[in-house]
Amino acid sequence: MKPSIPKGTRDFSPLQTARRNYIFDTIRGVFSLFGYNPIETPAMELITTLMGKYGEEGDRLLYRVQNSGADASLPPEKGLRYDLTVPFARYVVQHRGELTLPFRRSQIQPVWRADRPQKGRYREFYQCDADVVGSPSLLNEVELLQMVDEVFRRLRLRVTIKLNNRKVLAGIAQIIGEPDKIIDITTAIDKLDKIPLEAVEAELAQRGLSPQSIQALRPILQISGTTMERLDRLDEVLKPSAEGSLGVEELRQVITTTQTLGLQAELELDVALARGLNYYTGTIIEVKARDHQIGSISGGGRYDNLTGIFGMSGLSGVGVSFGADRIYDALDALGLFPPQASAATDVLFVNFGPDEALAALKAIKKLRNAGISAELYPDAAKMKKQMGYANDLNIPYVAIIGSEETAQGKITLKNMATGEQRLLTPEEAVATLQQHQ
Amino acid sequence: MKPSIPKGTRDFSPLQTARRNYIFDTIRGVFSLFGYNPIETPAMELITTLMGKYGEEGDRLLYRVQNSGADASLPPEKGLRYDLTVPFARYVVQHRGELTLPFRRSQIQPVWRADRPQKGRYREFYQCDADVVGSPSLLNEVELLQMVDEVFRRLRLRVTIKLNNRKVLAGIAQIIGEPDKIIDITTAIDKLDKIPLEAVEAELAQRGLSPQSIQALRPILQISGTTMERLDRLDEVLKPSAEGSLGVEELRQVITTTQTLGLQAELELDVALARGLNYYTGTIIEVKARDHQIGSISGGGRYDNLTGIFGMSGLSGVGVSFGADRIYDALDALGLFPPQASAATDVLFVNFGPDEALAALKAIKKLRNAGISAELYPDAAKMKKQMGYANDLNIPYVAIIGSEETAQGKITLKNMATGEQRLLTPEEAVATLQQHQ
Repeated sequence: MKPSIPKGTRDFSPLQTARRNYIFDTIRGVFSLFGYNPIETPAMELITTLMGKYGEEGDRLLYRVQNSGADASLPPEKGLRYDLTVPFARYVVQHRGELTLPFRRSQIQPVWRADRPQKGRYREFYQCDADVVGSPSLLNEVELLQMVDEVFRRLRLRVTIKLNNRKVLAGIAQIIGEPDKIIDITTAIDKLDKIPLEAVEAELAQRGLSPQSIQALRPILQISGTTMERLDRLDEVLKPSAEGSLGVEELRQVITTTQTLGLQAELELDVALARGLNYYTGTIIEVKARDHQIGSISGGGRYDNLTGIFGMSGLSGVGVSFGADRIYDALDALGLFPPQASAATDVLFVNFGPDEALAALKAIKKLRNAGISAELYPDAAKMKKQMGYANDLNIPYVAIIGSEETAQGKITLKNMATGEQRLLTPEEAVATLQQHQ
Repeated sequence: MKPSIPKGTRDFSPLQTARRNYIFDTIRGVFSLFGYNPIETPAMELITTLMGKYGEEGDRLLYRVQNSGADASLPPEKGLRYDLTVPFARYVVQHRGELTLPFRRSQIQPVWRADRPQKGRYREFYQCDADVVGSPSLLNEVELLQMVDEVFRRLRLRVTIKLNNRKVLAGIAQIIGEPDKIIDITTAIDKLDKIPLEAVEAELAQRGLSPQSIQALRPILQISGTTMERLDRLDEVLKPSAEGSLGVEELRQVITTTQTLGLQAELELDVALARGLNYYTGTIIEVKARDHQIGSISGGGRYDNLTGIFGMSGLSGVGVSFGADRIYDALDALGLFPPQASAATDVLFVNFGPDEALAALKAIKKLRNAGISAELYPDAAKMKKQMGYANDLNIPYVAIIGSEETAQGKITLKNMATGEQRLLTPEEAVATLQQHQ
């Protein structure tokens, strides 16, 4: 009976883990360059912290952990972390006395959801979040956009960053005369990138919008031109709504400043972008890969009252989150993982027996001191088996120290890709291997 | 009502996380230099994988995760990972078809135990393991000892590595005439570093050892001299036991080879070392900090039949594990965390308003391109507040770009430790900050 793992969970092989760590390390490096330093929270949170924070659906998808010992039959007191946002809000409120505001933090940890597993959806997956709380300044949005841009520049993934603002959505609902239907409107128009305008309008009618409102909405959705032209046009249209005008002004400031500083990604205004509308109160951000169809690979926005759920109101926050699994799939499909994101050492030393092995271990020590990863085949197995091991593991170089090499104090280094073999001093071997890294 | 977290779990602040990451990154770097590349396994394993692997006590301490949906009232099918060894054995058996042996792997992930929380004992903690399976060669032991040595050399923590061999313990039990009492003997003598010999002998008597056996044991426990002298003496004593002699020979090979290659740590033979005896079948390793009393900070050994529990026998393995929490406490107590293991950016730019902020963001972009972490205070708050922020976060430099600096294209850089202020070009600022890193 072959052992297995729970449905919807995954093992990661050395190669997969190396590639995932390449993504995490890239994101972590950029977070820290921008001052978003990491915190960590426990995998288990109190059920009271988690319940009621993710809607009815979310409550259903929480993993509950049985109490231990005599309390096993009582209702579970603990659950597994469902996202990183609620634990962050809990952290800020719990540690309010120790924090200096504004508080920037990042967090890269797994979360668990009892979702039906399907392609690309898992029951355990990592989230990579960066948030700042305690500052209403739009410069935070600018910095987060720069951060998103820098992460994908380093990953060599071309992206489009879509922007919107919850106040613009509210303004649109107001000026078409349906201020109370903002959720219906945004839920429907959020589908515009998947279905035609007519189908969206049919859905709006079904959701109870009047024909006049739907007619008034159409020209807004059809605003075209460059991002700046569309912003100007939107500004005119939303004049009658103070909230809508403020939203346009916020978008203008964020976009102008970000573009002045320069970024590699395409920045695009998208009035149909909604993303967790009930949550965001200002800027809304969504990132899509340009060369690979895979949904959004990053997103975020501003929420004016995150910590209110734990009784600490008035703290504005804004953040972004990176989806490591989708980024992995995009990099994989586009062949963008660098050769260093590998699970192989730089060189394998062949083992011919105790004396040669000792000579090899001495050479290996020199290589490792120079930062070159190296391993000795631990047993004096047949040459074919040892070479097969190097092949299977994609180790780029094999080193041989036999009697001849020992006599000369040298190493034979074989390039596994070209088959070329060279007799080198340890120093020359270091130089060759460093060049390859 | 202030929110909180489950008993025995922890939040890690940015500073704590930076310091923990310093430990993890050091260990991970050494693992990869030696060819122990990381895998990851899911937090939840099937209960059938976990049960019966850790003894009765272990079964009791497993966290069980409630089934979701309609199956919530049925016995839990999943539990949280209790250690990294059983998931590793499960991984090897499950993926046997994809693996090339010998298989070296490392794994750095949290584990969960429903233990009674106390000082230094938590319900969620990280393990950092490196193991190789599929090779009986003692060179694996040598490499693991080198790896342990290199980790603590990099962490600047002076350690003693204690070595023993299960076969030596079996040999001792044989020659004192109590071959079936090996567990009683080792359990008792394992306490020799805490209680006097007489107390250990009293316990041995209580455990049913005859006075003759106890008398025969005493000279073995009192063998003194250098490690090599003690090894020679032990060799003589254990001559009558083939198993014991083999154990001495294994220890001699491991110790001689490791010392020939050179290591910084003290290597010490300790015939009283037992550590999870039922598990190890050959070499036994334990590491203690020399300048801080804290129990073992690393340990490991050889186990001849790890994957046998999942029906795949005949695979010998050997591994070491690092205890991140105790290493943290030792580094903290000895003041050994380097300044770079900090949660602070290199420099904070003061915000005087929109125009100056934009100039600051342009300068910040240059710094970040040079690898210097930098942040802008997001709001144009009072100078005192902004300087207080830099102070609270231990940010070493504050940069000022006011009207004068803008006119000259320069930056005023203030060293927060010395109070010194200098007017610098952006390039000079980069050089100063890089020097400080």
